[in-house]
Order: sequence, then structure tokens, then C-alpha cells
Amino acid sequence: MLKTELCDLVGIEYPIFQGGMARISDGKLAAAVSEAGGLGIVSAASGDVEQIAGEMDIAAKLTSKPIGVNIMLRGSNIDEIAAMIAEKKPAVVTTGAGSPEKYMDMWKSAGIKVIPVAASAAYAKLFERAGADAVIAEGGESGGHIGELTTMALVPQVCDAVSIPVIAAGGIADGRGAAAALMLGACGIQVGTRFLLAEECSISRVYKDKLIKANDTSTVVTGRRLGHPVRSLKSKFSREYSRIEYTSISDEELEQFAVGSLGAAVTGDENHGCFLAGQISGIVNKEQPAAEIIREIFEQAEALLTGGTKWVK
Amino acid sequence: MLKTELCDLVGIEYPIFQGGMARISDGKLAAAVSEAGGLGIVSAASGDVEQIAGEMDIAAKLTSKPIGVNIMLRGSNIDEIAAMIAEKKPAVVTTGAGSPEKYMDMWKSAGIKVIPVAASAAYAKLFERAGADAVIAEGGESGGHIGELTTMALVPQVCDAVSIPVIAAGGIADGRGAAAALMLGACGIQVGTRFLLAEECSISRVYKDKLIKANDTSTVVTGRRLGHPVRSLKSKFSREYSRIEYTSISDEELEQFAVGSLGAAVTGDENHGCFLAGQISGIVNKEQPAAEIIREIFEQAEALLTGGTKWVK
Repeated sequence: MLKTELCDLVGIEYPIFQGGMARISDGKLAAAVSEAGGLGIVSAASGDVEQIAGEMDIAAKLTSKPIGVNIMLRGSNIDEIAAMIAEKKPAVVTTGAGSPEKYMDMWKSAGIKVIPVAASAAYAKLFERAGADAVIAEGGESGGHIGELTTMALVPQVCDAVSIPVIAAGGIADGRGAAAALMLGACGIQVGTRFLLAEECSISRVYKDKLIKANDTSTVVTGRRLGHPVRSLKSKFSREYSRIEYTSISDEELEQFAVGSLGAAVTGDENHGCFLAGQISGIVNKEQPAAEIIREIFEQAEALLTGGTKWVK
Repeated sequence: MLKTELCDLVGIEYPIFQGGMARISDGKLAAAVSEAGGLGIVSAASGDVEQIAGEMDIAAKLTSKPIGVNIMLRGSNIDEIAAMIAEKKPAVVTTGAGSPEKYMDMWKSAGIKVIPVAASAAYAKLFERAGADAVIAEGGESGGHIGELTTMALVPQVCDAVSIPVIAAGGIADGRGAAAALMLGACGIQVGTRFLLAEECSISRVYKDKLIKANDTSTVVTGRRLGHPVRSLKSKFSREYSRIEYTSISDEELEQFAVGSLGAAVTGDENHGCFLAGQISGIVNKEQPAAEIIREIFEQAEALLTGGTKWVK
């Protein structure tokens, strides 16, 4: 079995995190991933403390294995959510959209591992200095909110910049990506897009079918003008957004245009949905139990890693 | 030593191509790379048949090993350049900006291996059907003209789409990238940015020093509006271009603004130069002979590939 230091750090069997996907990563999905030996992560993006706590409780009821929670450090009630997390003591908190420095002591003294997402080497260094236990180096090929650097370029540069463990994210959906991530210096992977097709993932049939049909060029980035680029599957929404993005429309109107689009994707509204997904969508073609996804990824990675000597003559 | 099927296909010792960089990849650089066991590639981007033939002759005088030439299939005298190439019979021609179908028979009957750059799985399939001997899957983290897909996402999807050998390009500058590329399914790599710091590369001191100082976030993409995005190091030129790109400036004026910027970079004009380089620039910090660059990359890759079993328990 494939083991890295990340397994020991977090107490998991396979070095894989399931990405905290806004409005998607609920307690049921997270529990399925954790129960299968990875780290399931509940998304705190709704901003509703009761709802997030509820999903964490659902996960805890379904598995006794470690669970994580992902919080975007932007919004009105982050303090409240952060305090709830400190109380609930998940194994891991992953953070996005800024530095978790403010909550570091509170979380760490609750025994929680703090693992921020870093989109550059400078951010990774900042998080290491602030006490992070590891960092997730996430490339811009991933779905959802993205940075500029790609996984191939970002991971080695983050590894050179910090001494804490690095988890690679972005463009990884099978054992090839997992093995490549280890070669780049990472000690584990975070996977989002492929878990959208987990049987335990509650998104609409429309969303899953769009993903199954997608190929390598099916995603597009919108939102660059407002400074928060987002990658999603090409759709009626993305076409319309792209059409108006660089017109004379005001920032407020453009912002308003996207309101509700994530929820619409989850419930299967093809007219208004923004269906977040990464560039690796083309190899994500089959609905499977989360446990089977994890097993397949690591069987393939293990075969590639043990076969790596075939090129050395 | 690390060997793959690409070595046999092209007749080289190490599975590495030096990217055909416009106005940079001359006969001297190509010869140094080929003499060291990789495939040196002369750029035909100048469009000047005499000049390109001259550089190919220089390379042939400096080494008896295989040499390649890179042609962008856009411009007024492509037929003429293509015919000259068929006559000179380099070991390999790599192509960009379109399909080489038109020249395929001419080149192949001259014994030249034809290896197009593909920015998507669909293009890779098209090139395979047209008779290409291999394809280069180049991710958008590379320097110069770029596509949308990243190396991590593109390489496995191209590998799934075609049966011919796949060479990975974009974001690769050391043995970590080379080993990762093999895990993704490639049988070799193409490297551009790191060869900018080859001692045999004739770009200005200013260009080399900018690259040495660069970190992971030092590059920027300009030209998206005109449909031909280009990645370069942040500079006076790129700042000014970005400032005007989405203003009311006409396409013609915007195009005109960039004329001469590549040449200016090569000669070291900090005010007007567009210094092409990839996102991996942050780990490219040392001027070295091309032979040392190649040796370092493959020593590191070999160590990683033979050590890959350490994770399997």
C-alpha cells in the first residue's frame, strides 16, 4: 500500500484529501471518503454555522475516522464559524482565501491540524511561519476559485520554499496524477472533480451527466475582471458571463449576475447553473463509490511507482 | 541511464527536446543540446529562409548528432521554409500554430520525423491521423505562445487520446518535472525556460539576469484579447500592455504595440522587451553549460524514479 508522511500526520490510510467544494462537500460525501481511508472534508462555504455543524455531525455519525472541514476566510461570520470548528475539533481544517493566522492558536490548541491552500510559494512560506501543519499547493487547472500558477509549476516551487508537508491539488484525478504529484515533491493529493462522481455525492443528475460528457477543453474561466477567477464547465451561464464580462456592465451588476449560480448547478438548473469542475474532467467518466475511486487511484499510482525503474537502464 | 522509446524514435541519448524559442533557439544552442545527448531545435520563427538555413548549417557544423527545427505554420512564406526543411533533412521537425498535414508527405518521405505541438486531445488525434510520429503536449505554464490546458491536465488526456509517443512540455525544468511527466504517461520532455540559461544561449545579460531573479509569480499572460496569449516575465512592456489591453484601443494599435518586443528582449532592451519565460522560472537560477543542465535533470529524475518504491509498503 502507498504510504507517505501525510498518512501519519493526519491519521489516514491513503494520502488523499477530498476537496472542500462549496455547496457540494457535505457530511455524507466526507464520511464516505474518510470511511474509505482518505480525508473527507465538509465545506463551510455556506456561512451558516448551524448548517455546517449539522453536516459535521452527520459525518461523525457515519464514520469514526478523521474528518476535515474547509473554510474560506472571507465573509461576515468567519469568527463564529472558526469558534464552532475549535469546539467540534475535526482532525483537520483546510483554509482558503487568505491567511488563517488569526485562528491558528485557537485551532492548534484544540488539537486540529491546520492546512491552508497556497497559490504561490510566498503564501506557503507565510502559512508555514504562522504555524501551519502542511500546505495544499493548488494549481489553476482545478475547479472553482483558482490561482494563476499551475500544479506542475507550483508544487516544486512550494516544496523548495517550505519544510512542512506539501499536498498537491489541481488536475489530479487518477493514479498518474497521484504518482506525478509525489515526483514533484508532494506527499499527498487533494482531489475535487473526480469525487463529484462519487455515488455518495449529492449533486444533481444534470451536473453528473455534464461531467461525464466533458472532455479536456470543456472548462472555462470566468470572473477574472472582478479578481476572483472561477473554473467551471462550459454552460449557458458561462457563455453569457463571458459575453458580458468585458462590456460596460458595472462590477455590481456583473457580481449580481453570478448570484445563485452554484446552487443552481447543484440542483440541476441548466439555464443558470455554474457547474464547477477542473480541466481533468475529460478523464472523469464514471460514477463510483468513493471507496472504489480511492482504491483505483492508489492501485494505479502504486503500479506506476514500482514500475518507475523500467526507464532506468 | 534513463531511456524511453523517444530515444529510439529520434536517435538521442536522453529523452529531452530543447524548445524552439523564437529569435532565441539558434544553431549554436541547438548544437550544444544535441551534442550533450538531447535534441537541439533551431527556431524557424524569423521567417527568413536564408537565415534559418544558415542556423541549421551552423548546428550541423558543430555536431554530427540529430538536430531538429521548429516551424510555426503561420506566415507568408511557410511553403518555402517547409521545402527548405525537406531538402536539409533534419532528424525532426516540430510544428506549432496549426496542422502540418499539408507538408506531412514531403517531410516524411525525406526521412524527417514530424512532431507537432498539441494543446488539446482533439488536436493530438488530428495530428496522429495526419501521420505525426509523436506529439508534444504543451501546457499553458510554458513561456511564449500558450494554450489553455495545463501540463498536469493535458498530458494524461492526450496520452488517452493517441497511440503515438507523447512528449510533455510546460512547467518542466528539473528532474522532478521530468519524472512527473513520465508518470503522467509521456515518454519524454521538452524544456524551454531552463535552456535560456544555458551558457550557449545567446540572449542578452539583461534577459538572463531577469530570469535568475524571477520567482514563481514573475510571469504574466498578455494578448488574450487578440486570441494569441503569450507568457512572459513581468516587465515594463507587459505592465503597459496589460494596462491598455482592455481599453478602447483598436486591435491594430494593440498588435502594433507588441511589434519588435521579442527582439528587444533578446538584445536586452528593458523598456520594450517582452521576455518570454515559463512559470517554472523560479527554479531556474543558474547559468550552466547545456550538457550540465541535461545531466542534472536526468540524474535527479533517475534517482526519483528508482526511489519511487519507498512509498509502497
